[in-house]
Amino acid sequence: MQLSEITEHLEAIEETIVFKLIDRAQYRENAVIYQSGKSGFSGWLDKSLFEIRLRYHEEMDAQFGRFCVPEERPFTPELPLPRRKVLLPETGLAIDSYDTVNLTEEISAGYRRLVAELCVDGDDGQYGSSVEHDVYALQAIARRVHYGSLYVAESKFISAPQCFGALIDARDGSGLLGLLTRKDVEEKILMRVREKTVAVQATVNSAVRRSIDPDIVVEFYRDCIIPLTKKGEVLYLLNRKAGNGI
Amino acid sequence: MQLSEITEHLEAIEETIVFKLIDRAQYRENAVIYQSGKSGFSGWLDKSLFEIRLRYHEEMDAQFGRFCVPEERPFTPELPLPRRKVLLPETGLAIDSYDTVNLTEEISAGYRRLVAELCVDGDDGQYGSSVEHDVYALQAIARRVHYGSLYVAESKFISAPQCFGALIDARDGSGLLGLLTRKDVEEKILMRVREKTVAVQATVNSAVRRSIDPDIVVEFYRDCIIPLTKKGEVLYLLNRKAGNGI
Repeated sequence: MQLSEITEHLEAIEETIVFKLIDRAQYRENAVIYQSGKSGFSGWLDKSLFEIRLRYHEEMDAQFGRFCVPEERPFTPELPLPRRKVLLPETGLAIDSYDTVNLTEEISAGYRRLVAELCVDGDDGQYGSSVEHDVYALQAIARRVHYGSLYVAESKFISAPQCFGALIDARDGSGLLGLLTRKDVEEKILMRVREKTVAVQATVNSAVRRSIDPDIVVEFYRDCIIPLTKKGEVLYLLNRKAGNGI
Repeated sequence: MQLSEITEHLEAIEETIVFKLIDRAQYRENAVIYQSGKSGFSGWLDKSLFEIRLRYHEEMDAQFGRFCVPEERPFTPELPLPRRKVLLPETGLAIDSYDTVNLTEEISAGYRRLVAELCVDGDDGQYGSSVEHDVYALQAIARRVHYGSLYVAESKFISAPQCFGALIDARDGSGLLGLLTRKDVEEKILMRVREKTVAVQATVNSAVRRSIDPDIVVEFYRDCIIPLTKKGEVLYLLNRKAGNGI
């Protein structure tokens, strides 16, 4: 439970998030895929195509045991049980249910706003590909938020159990948020994400493939990924077993 | 049916293939996921975890109508019917069944060899993530091969129906292969794929994230993607309706 290793993992998955956003942006926004009752999908006429795809994908993932992993929190309720045993190393986390820290609703809302910025307006008819790539992007983002929420919080806690314990005992969420916040680290992340988004697209032939604006990715990190990760850290600490440091 | 537009689309999806290979390479080879009878997945004990994941994923995709699209050919037989109507623009293709040009078996075998080169040897226990990314990579590769097979072949045919028609009438597969082959174009693709693989990874922090060797991607294009695309083009032409150009 070394903070340096945890932040290295968070850094390593930045490229994956950028890749998946770029792939989604090859399609138009296709707003109809987010509208309830417009899916044309038999048996699910009250849902949007996006919601149906996410449910189907997570039903599959659940059977493969994805949600046994702490940082893989589902967007969808009532999923089937795993059909294989997932052997996990000792997590070191001190929480009864990982779903105490489930920020998927806010991730989903933030992502929906992102898509409107990221993609060209309008409709290209590529609904199946759009929702497919929505799911890939959402899962990568959710993994980042939840991994950070759980492991950053625990590792910071064990580095200063007295300070955190006192705030936990006082149920002082904003105190915890203050203690967790490192503006300099956040600025470093934003700068790195910008550089990566630029570099990854440096050789794109813009006549044949769409590039995305690095500002949009940076803003999404600043306004969604980072604040939700910190919100998740606070949630984790307020629900930590033996929260007073024992 | 302009060859220039078709090759632009093939160029545009090169990045997507590179992204997905890089994401897969963040996990070890995990050879056990390709071994039959080692999945630990209830109900499918004779298959490999990879085969089971691919089947589940394609069963989902089939219900969303993916395989109504000409270039989306399934790896798995006996898939469920679509649960939504997929509206396609006129394809311009002249073939009775798109599955006449289905190279998934060879794509799968080539991909399996690629994984052994691409990934670090050994086992990291990340079986679920590995097969998940295998499916993403395989589908991107298969889309490239089948799109090229169908549309490049048709567009070349209509640009020279007499030449192609004579070879088709003579059932001359190797003559067709010769007529379709443009070594200079292939060299350009290989050079571009190398440049992209380098550029996309230019800012990777190698202390936290694995990079892949551009040579491996280039070889995969040279030994698998390009020859299979040409094989698919020949298959298309030999099965073209009114193959003599009428």
